Amino acid sequence: MIPSLFTLGNLFFGFLAIIWTMNGNYQVASGLIILSVLMDSMDGKVARKLSVSTDFGRELDSLCDVVSFGVAPAILTYKVLLEGHMGFWGVLLAAAFALCGAVRLARFNVLNITTHFVGVPITFAGGLMALLVLFYQSLPWIVYPIALALLAFLMVSSFKVPKLGK
Amino acid sequence: MIPSLFTLGNLFFGFLAIIWTMNGNYQVASGLIILSVLMDSMDGKVARKLSVSTDFGRELDSLCDVVSFGVAPAILTYKVLLEGHMGFWGVLLAAAFALCGAVRLARFNVLNITTHFVGVPITFAGGLMALLVLFYQSLPWIVYPIALALLAFLMVSSFKVPKLGK
Repeated sequence: MIPSLFTLGNLFFGFLAIIWTMNGNYQVASGLIILSVLMDSMDGKVARKLSVSTDFGRELDSLCDVVSFGVAPAILTYKVLLEGHMGFWGVLLAAAFALCGAVRLARFNVLNITTHFVGVPITFAGGLMALLVLFYQSLPWIVYPIALALLAFLMVSSFKVPKLGK
Repeated sequence: MIPSLFTLGNLFFGFLAIIWTMNGNYQVASGLIILSVLMDSMDGKVARKLSVSTDFGRELDSLCDVVSFGVAPAILTYKVLLEGHMGFWGVLLAAAFALCGAVRLARFNVLNITTHFVGVPITFAGGLMALLVLFYQSLPWIVYPIALALLAFLMVSSFKVPKLGK
């Protein structure tokens, strides 16, 4: 119950990030996604501490992650940087990021490996994009489509990524 | 593989619906969510026909559903009808719809019942909201927060809903 509240907090902030993106408050939207990363790291910790990891919690976690770290950062990056420079190609690239994130989560849940990650975790990819958008006024725009494409690829790739900081 | 393409089509149109909502094309956004409903009904049919239902497919399906039928209709309804009339309360109501959708999907995957649904399916709830938004110029605005709250409640309720048209 308690870990699920953090998980739902993750989705709540991801949802708010999309609304704030829509209203043009890009830095607040980035901050909300980063807040989702914190919520996401809390739910696992709390679940392990209370020894209440459940299938329900794991399912819910993925469903929230795809929104907060797949869809929300893709929409944010599209709106802030790709729309003006790439038009509809930007929509396709942003959608590809969200789709790769969903594929990664589905594969991770099925493989059920606990010792390491296969491919870059969506929380890392989405959190990094949000962090990059915080500095969109200082970085060249081309950084963003490259980062989005690279992270999308790394999410569905088969690289082993060690788990840090349980 | 082939059913998963329909599933990803579902997410793709749901993602586009959010972008189109952001750009003020509300009727196109509604249409895109309804297109997602069609994609979603296709993937299950194709998977059963080809006898290739997999755990991966089922996981991916839920991940796409939460975006296309939870987040996208909530964002659309908020933007078109709630923002002007309800302000931040509208954000909370729209977020509650998305959160209830995620809880419903997580519960459904864990229960793994195949004979009937427990609670209203998210595809129905999200599809109905998109359909209602198509007629937002003819219906009184109060219909929308009521429908959103009622469907959110019905998704997480424990009513048995018969499965129709396999």
